[in-house]
Amino acid sequence: MHVFVVGNIGVDQTYLIDELPEKGASIPGRKISQDLGGKGANQAIILARCGINTTLIAACGNDASGVWCRDKISQESLSLFPTHPVDCVTDTSIILNSADGDNANITTSSAADSLSIDLIISALSHAQPGDILLQQGNFTYEKTRAVFTYARDRQLFTVFNPSPVKTPFAQLWPLIDLAVLNSVEARQLSQGRRQTADAAQRLLADGLTALVVTLGAEGARLYRGEHQYQVAAPPATVVDTTGAGDTFLAVMLASSLLRGVAVDSLALRHAGAAAAITIGRSGTLSAFPSRAELQRVLAADRVI
Amino acid sequence: MHVFVVGNIGVDQTYLIDELPEKGASIPGRKISQDLGGKGANQAIILARCGINTTLIAACGNDASGVWCRDKISQESLSLFPTHPVDCVTDTSIILNSADGDNANITTSSAADSLSIDLIISALSHAQPGDILLQQGNFTYEKTRAVFTYARDRQLFTVFNPSPVKTPFAQLWPLIDLAVLNSVEARQLSQGRRQTADAAQRLLADGLTALVVTLGAEGARLYRGEHQYQVAAPPATVVDTTGAGDTFLAVMLASSLLRGVAVDSLALRHAGAAAAITIGRSGTLSAFPSRAELQRVLAADRVI
Repeated sequence: MHVFVVGNIGVDQTYLIDELPEKGASIPGRKISQDLGGKGANQAIILARCGINTTLIAACGNDASGVWCRDKISQESLSLFPTHPVDCVTDTSIILNSADGDNANITTSSAADSLSIDLIISALSHAQPGDILLQQGNFTYEKTRAVFTYARDRQLFTVFNPSPVKTPFAQLWPLIDLAVLNSVEARQLSQGRRQTADAAQRLLADGLTALVVTLGAEGARLYRGEHQYQVAAPPATVVDTTGAGDTFLAVMLASSLLRGVAVDSLALRHAGAAAAITIGRSGTLSAFPSRAELQRVLAADRVI
Repeated sequence: MHVFVVGNIGVDQTYLIDELPEKGASIPGRKISQDLGGKGANQAIILARCGINTTLIAACGNDASGVWCRDKISQESLSLFPTHPVDCVTDTSIILNSADGDNANITTSSAADSLSIDLIISALSHAQPGDILLQQGNFTYEKTRAVFTYARDRQLFTVFNPSPVKTPFAQLWPLIDLAVLNSVEARQLSQGRRQTADAAQRLLADGLTALVVTLGAEGARLYRGEHQYQVAAPPATVVDTTGAGDTFLAVMLASSLLRGVAVDSLALRHAGAAAAITIGRSGTLSAFPSRAELQRVLAADRVI
């Protein structure tokens, strides 16, 4: 059993500033951190640290940032494809934290955009029926659809985390076995449903097999056919929520795969316990639970 | 004869965006370039490429950007001090170019701030009377003053490029042999003079020995005692003005040092010809004239 994560990889740079700059202004700032990021890379790293055989299909550019990203990935137990940099600039997120706690992000996607469907399919050529294909929302609708269509043809189990959300993603539900989204994304992709519960039912009616809606401090709720259940989030000290959603998704998936069961309430509890570790630390990769911490989380029969 | 440049070194990252982000927004962007920057590094590199013995006293952090900066510097014929990274983040400028051509900059200075006066003085211990000390405006007033005071005590020739400008810099003129500033900076540092000519006379009256005011497309004007003369800028195609001021200053200084004369009109013409090369190319370091181009510029007896 193998998880193929098709997505992006990049550099998260976080700056602390008094106030967002106006045009023509030169303002001082403080660089707080530089960390590996990109939702694809984040989820693949957590899966690998949980002991899952993982391949990350994501492009690095042929610049210094690409060398840095590849070096970080080489320290994890996962395979990266393409094995060589692509001819473009590595994707970067500039995170501007204002003094009042609000922030603004600027994210580039030329490396993610340059990853062709042919390259992705060649990387998936060794996938076996029953393997898992996990995608996020970083590609265009057309590329995202083409990857899921190919995965279904190959009888892979498809998992979708449609973030950042794009409206046409609502047409993809019949191709998806499991979706993980927050309540805002659920409403945006359910043709105007205002209540999260209504949105979830709409997605299932539209062809999705199962979904998990993450609810922040209120935990998460799973919907599958007629069944649904919610688990509370464990108590946590919030330092920085970056990467918490990626931690949740990856540990939830790993917990169910390692036990050979569909996502259940224990998987949600394992996921919540791991996400609580991530939000207690600043940064992205540097906030993630270690392999040892994840082993402890996943070994628990019951987690509060 | 040796030039000691005491200043900063960092990474310039340029992003193209539609519009500056508002709080809470995540917007797409395109990374156009990453280049070595920092006014201290820029001026030191040009001086070295002109064939001047140059030491750059500027701090890199102990992060990946610091490794990248030190690698870039190692490709130039200059000495870098401190020889080891300091325990902080490398300085970075995030340049946000809006679609309408306007831009905003966010610049960090923790590495420049961490360079202590004791470290600077230890790097200057081999300086001989008659050597040149060149500073920009990246340090605090107190540190800038302490460096110039030490340099005067050691009988070094002091050159000041007070950018970015800080109001108290106006108290430093008695310590300066040569200042290079643009007309806005000249007015800001001349106790309210509105005309550039009046501002220049005020600076000389305040104790400055000589100054060059750069006037963009109109060239530059030198003031020394009763003498002054202006040279026109050569025709140039403007692609990106980043680093043009640094090119001008360094080539002007190199031209006079190599001929063993005070800054004269030929030095200003050499400087203008070199700056025209820089503004015809995009980026910072990658826009600078090569060693061969600078040799040709400096070999010209007369430049238009």
